[in-house]
Amino acid sequence: MRRHRDQVRMSTPDPTDVHPAWLPDEAWRAIGVRRILVCGEGALVDTVQAEVERAADRYGGTARRNPTEADLPPADLVLALTDALPPDSSPATEPGPPETLTATATATATAVATAIAQLGTATAQLGESLGVEGFALARHAGVTVVLADAPAGLLYGLFELVRLGEAAFGPTHPVRVHRPVMARRMLDHWDNVDVHPVMGQVERGYAGGSIFWQDGRPRGDVARVTAYARLLAACGINAVSVNNVNVHAIEARLLTERLDDVVDLADLLRPYAIRVHLAVTFAAPVVLGGLPTADPLDQAVRDWWAETTARVYARIPDFGGYLVKADSEGQPGPFSYGRDHADGANLLAEALAPYGGVVHWRAFVYNHRQDWRDRSTDRARAAYDHFAPLDGRFRDNVIVQVKHGPMDFQTREPVSPVIAAMPGTRLAVEFQVTQEYTGQQRHVCYLAPWWSEILRFAPWGDDGRTVADVAAGGGGLVAVSNVGDDRFWTGHPLAQANLYAFGRLCWNPRLRPQEVLDEWIDLTFAPDARVDPELLRRTLHEIMDDSWRTYERYTAPLGVGFMVRPGHHYGPDVDGYEYTPWGTYHFADRDGVGVDRTRATGTGFTGQYPPPWSELYESIDTCPDELLLFFHHVPYGHLLHSGSTVIQHIYDTHFEGVREVEAMCRRWEWLARLVDPAVHARVTERLAEQVRCAREWCDQVNAYFHRKSGIPDAHGRALH
Amino acid sequence: MRRHRDQVRMSTPDPTDVHPAWLPDEAWRAIGVRRILVCGEGALVDTVQAEVERAADRYGGTARRNPTEADLPPADLVLALTDALPPDSSPATEPGPPETLTATATATATAVATAIAQLGTATAQLGESLGVEGFALARHAGVTVVLADAPAGLLYGLFELVRLGEAAFGPTHPVRVHRPVMARRMLDHWDNVDVHPVMGQVERGYAGGSIFWQDGRPRGDVARVTAYARLLAACGINAVSVNNVNVHAIEARLLTERLDDVVDLADLLRPYAIRVHLAVTFAAPVVLGGLPTADPLDQAVRDWWAETTARVYARIPDFGGYLVKADSEGQPGPFSYGRDHADGANLLAEALAPYGGVVHWRAFVYNHRQDWRDRSTDRARAAYDHFAPLDGRFRDNVIVQVKHGPMDFQTREPVSPVIAAMPGTRLAVEFQVTQEYTGQQRHVCYLAPWWSEILRFAPWGDDGRTVADVAAGGGGLVAVSNVGDDRFWTGHPLAQANLYAFGRLCWNPRLRPQEVLDEWIDLTFAPDARVDPELLRRTLHEIMDDSWRTYERYTAPLGVGFMVRPGHHYGPDVDGYEYTPWGTYHFADRDGVGVDRTRATGTGFTGQYPPPWSELYESIDTCPDELLLFFHHVPYGHLLHSGSTVIQHIYDTHFEGVREVEAMCRRWEWLARLVDPAVHARVTERLAEQVRCAREWCDQVNAYFHRKSGIPDAHGRALH
Repeated sequence: MRRHRDQVRMSTPDPTDVHPAWLPDEAWRAIGVRRILVCGEGALVDTVQAEVERAADRYGGTARRNPTEADLPPADLVLALTDALPPDSSPATEPGPPETLTATATATATAVATAIAQLGTATAQLGESLGVEGFALARHAGVTVVLADAPAGLLYGLFELVRLGEAAFGPTHPVRVHRPVMARRMLDHWDNVDVHPVMGQVERGYAGGSIFWQDGRPRGDVARVTAYARLLAACGINAVSVNNVNVHAIEARLLTERLDDVVDLADLLRPYAIRVHLAVTFAAPVVLGGLPTADPLDQAVRDWWAETTARVYARIPDFGGYLVKADSEGQPGPFSYGRDHADGANLLAEALAPYGGVVHWRAFVYNHRQDWRDRSTDRARAAYDHFAPLDGRFRDNVIVQVKHGPMDFQTREPVSPVIAAMPGTRLAVEFQVTQEYTGQQRHVCYLAPWWSEILRFAPWGDDGRTVADVAAGGGGLVAVSNVGDDRFWTGHPLAQANLYAFGRLCWNPRLRPQEVLDEWIDLTFAPDARVDPELLRRTLHEIMDDSWRTYERYTAPLGVGFMVRPGHHYGPDVDGYEYTPWGTYHFADRDGVGVDRTRATGTGFTGQYPPPWSELYESIDTCPDELLLFFHHVPYGHLLHSGSTVIQHIYDTHFEGVREVEAMCRRWEWLARLVDPAVHARVTERLAEQVRCAREWCDQVNAYFHRKSGIPDAHGRALH
Repeated sequence: MRRHRDQVRMSTPDPTDVHPAWLPDEAWRAIGVRRILVCGEGALVDTVQAEVERAADRYGGTARRNPTEADLPPADLVLALTDALPPDSSPATEPGPPETLTATATATATAVATAIAQLGTATAQLGESLGVEGFALARHAGVTVVLADAPAGLLYGLFELVRLGEAAFGPTHPVRVHRPVMARRMLDHWDNVDVHPVMGQVERGYAGGSIFWQDGRPRGDVARVTAYARLLAACGINAVSVNNVNVHAIEARLLTERLDDVVDLADLLRPYAIRVHLAVTFAAPVVLGGLPTADPLDQAVRDWWAETTARVYARIPDFGGYLVKADSEGQPGPFSYGRDHADGANLLAEALAPYGGVVHWRAFVYNHRQDWRDRSTDRARAAYDHFAPLDGRFRDNVIVQVKHGPMDFQTREPVSPVIAAMPGTRLAVEFQVTQEYTGQQRHVCYLAPWWSEILRFAPWGDDGRTVADVAAGGGGLVAVSNVGDDRFWTGHPLAQANLYAFGRLCWNPRLRPQEVLDEWIDLTFAPDARVDPELLRRTLHEIMDDSWRTYERYTAPLGVGFMVRPGHHYGPDVDGYEYTPWGTYHFADRDGVGVDRTRATGTGFTGQYPPPWSELYESIDTCPDELLLFFHHVPYGHLLHSGSTVIQHIYDTHFEGVREVEAMCRRWEWLARLVDPAVHARVTERLAEQVRCAREWCDQVNAYFHRKSGIPDAHGRALH
């Protein structure tokens, strides 16, 4: 068996030392040993063709493209666009009896035709199109068939086959139609073109430099970007914003004089059905256009955006659109001109509309110059206060991009009330794959359970509609990428699972996190004769399944959030943000802790929710334990639904969180000979840091609350 | 009257926009209008000659050099080396009756001879030499005479005349002999040659870039460095270390391949009697010399230092020596080789000894990886624990450089016990003119009262010996410079006074801080016909005299220290360092606050002091209020000697500190038309920040202790 590194060398377009993530060669074996037909035209079908050819070359199969009717060869796998089906295999043809064919090892041309026909008929009977990205998959008569109405669907069908592996070639595979739940499945790169003096090459990046940019210039690593596009397509991502939402001087010019750099990236991502988006500065008409104003109602400004956007589409016809962080944390915006965010967003939407482009307009607007002394101002209220009144005023191609929680990607927050507040607006829900507040890819923290919980949340209670439904009916899901030029892509090898899971949850938010993790494990950790796959899978589940809750246990308690070191946001500092202008407080004193956000006595934030949540969060009796301190200020002796007091809960969960990380380390040690040594070494090193840091969190948080409350641990453990 | 800026243009060697600090043209008027004789040979006498010529050119006087006996001209001012006196004026000559001469406006040659003779006789009668830097000054028979045994003394005599102004030319001036109390009066520049990614061009610099270095190269501003040398000579500084004690890669090479850069600086500082010192890395034999070790007992290492040092002296014959921060905060040192600091320091001293050079070896050695949970480790103990046992083992030309307090340049600390612990070692006491922990030159904080208190402290109690005496008998005083390329030199124009005062206190530690401030005010704020000098002087005293105590009031209380934002050390963060490895804690809990450093129940630090301090600090009853929390952990209700409780003291002093800063602002406004508009504007801007920051300190510290103690303010003021 080849060693991992050799596999990498072969599986990436260019020989590099980069880890293959969830697309190691071995994942292509089941396809590569088959006789494959690819039917259809178009660049994305060419991509499919190239992928299956590569697999076939490696594993001894064959790959044919667009056979004629006369020449329909025997095949085990067909990937076909519906409009490119061989005439003989039209759905009208009656197939032979399946049972005579299923066991055939070498399917005949007739069997191929039959299998295609069967699937064609089945999908036609669905009465609805597969859509531009959907596909149908079945195995019949010894032939596995993927059908799609459009080329992108065929590509996604191919990657579904990769996921299935040999299971796609078993005795049968029933007809299954796959369509993405979210039309837009987007990653935002907070990559700076130039190295920012404080934030570096990638803002909140924990995996080295940018794969797109380096020291003010494009990085020019074609192989790396292509490998990235492939990985994204394989988990379902179809849109990427290529620069930081905090748009600095050089980055602003990507829209105009540096447009060539964006064109180059678009050309690399396009073969994998990924559209490029660009973060732009609202001040562009001034800083780039030399206009005296960026007022959205100014005709010259509108003209400038129209002309600039036309030039972008002339070069990138499938350009996705703009992403804007306006009037937030120092970025310019419509407020400067006495306009609101609808005016601002509509300005760009108007320019993009003729080309089908969209503007992602972030709702992350709040006062970051808040006075910590003023307990009436509540940052949690800000997005709703700014945006809910504007519902209905945004153009159709505006997507208001809302962070999943009202604060800022904490380990635990309630779902943002904005999600239920703008029925007349297309909303996208924004997650953070990069682990800014969840361990910065030095801690194992599998985030899919957290995202899944959010996506399944029902903003209106029992009416059945979920956050996922809102996003699916609106602008889809967006997440901040966790990828860098690190050889494992994500710094922590296990953090690859978060990127994979985000893509898969975009495609289907009902997937269970453990199920997604199984997919990721089976793809990433290619089978090895010496490895018991069940042992590997079970151990990784034990380490990862509950890792988010473990992280929650040893960090800020009961939904109160933050308590991180200001600036870099890593490691504990209970009072780090307590007396700052950032609006992120816990208000701990000698008697109690938490933020009163009730209507009765607090900031009134609970009133931003519709029933039942407005009532449920308002009452200390019904508020879920895990969000108690987000919504209420309570005495340390307050009894949780769990039966524990707040203070004892703090002590217990923190000690427990540390024990769980220690257990992770032991479990990972067991895998020493079961995974690639380089992966094992990197994870081992990160786990050592996680243990150190978890102990630090535990001891600091416990010491802080012990010193403040004076209440000893019920179990007599040492508190500092 | 010319405007200030025009004066600057004329008074600096090169036309620049740089503020003249305490050497504006106007300060030279009293000299410049006189007929001056300069007698003596040597480069420093040339400097004196050039200075008086420049003054005479500007103000209409005359300057003659080394007149012959036959040609002794009439003069009002004579600056002469004793060995260059005109023969006629030899001390043996009997002077005529003084009363006939004193009122003469145009002194004759005879009068000059007489005056010189009188002073010569008087100084000869002292029976001791004036030393290499001393001088005698008197006015007799209408002639003011400065006599010195050596050229440097003549230079210092000249600047004493500048300070005296017209007072040097009054009816009479009694014979006064001036000799510096400290032989070594040194400034350490923490200037990096290259910009450090975290610390910038000047570590802990608050006045812009370095005047020596810029972006990896010498700055090359001859005029600026010359102006700086002149300012230093005028306040008595005679040694400058030109690079940061944290010696990075490029900076290390100043010792070898970049030595030319040091030569250039030495050439610029030498005309003002300032010797250049260099901070070196202990690892130099390895990183520069390519040796496998830097072990101080290794012969090859000793040879390397000997050869390297010889090369330095070949280029800079008056080179001062090396400055070393070893085994401290990540810098390399003898510990790596199992050697102690005496071994390390003696290694360099051996290399320097043949040339009369010294090594300044910093005693700032402590564990900066301390566990905050461990209350037995005490950073305050570290310098004593490391160095006291080595007393007597250092070579004569080692100067152990001790920070004035046991921690790190806090607003209030006890005097370091090391100062009393090493009678067999030459000690230098280190201050910090740069205001790292005292407002960073954004706050008015005149530090001379603090330094004066330290210098007058009697480490052994009533035996009369002071810290100043220890330094005077040892290695003198050293301070970290507060100067940068800012047009006002120090960012805050009033921070110039700290630099001036440090030099003056080196020269004479018994000078009263208010007296030094008077000198600085009278020099800096040149008389203006429209200005009432008394009003200006009184107002500046009101603003500055007590500004250090004001700063103390609104920051960390009762000697406990720190409570600053980690990293940059500006502004409040009560718990900022509480759970860090830096060893700087306050241990506040709901019941009390402070660090128990007693022998009875604490870290035993009090035992490092000799009596009476060991007893006085040990007892909570005798420990001075202002150091109470440095030495003791006490309940919030503990009664201070002042009659206030600790908690009420905290509230009161913080509110009071803010009020005092507000008063500073009002007073400064009064000066709007009395000082240069640019100075006024800069100070006004800084005061606005000081008020903001003082309020922040007040509110955060009070809120912190209110939340923790639960005790309300006795006067019912709002606490957050």
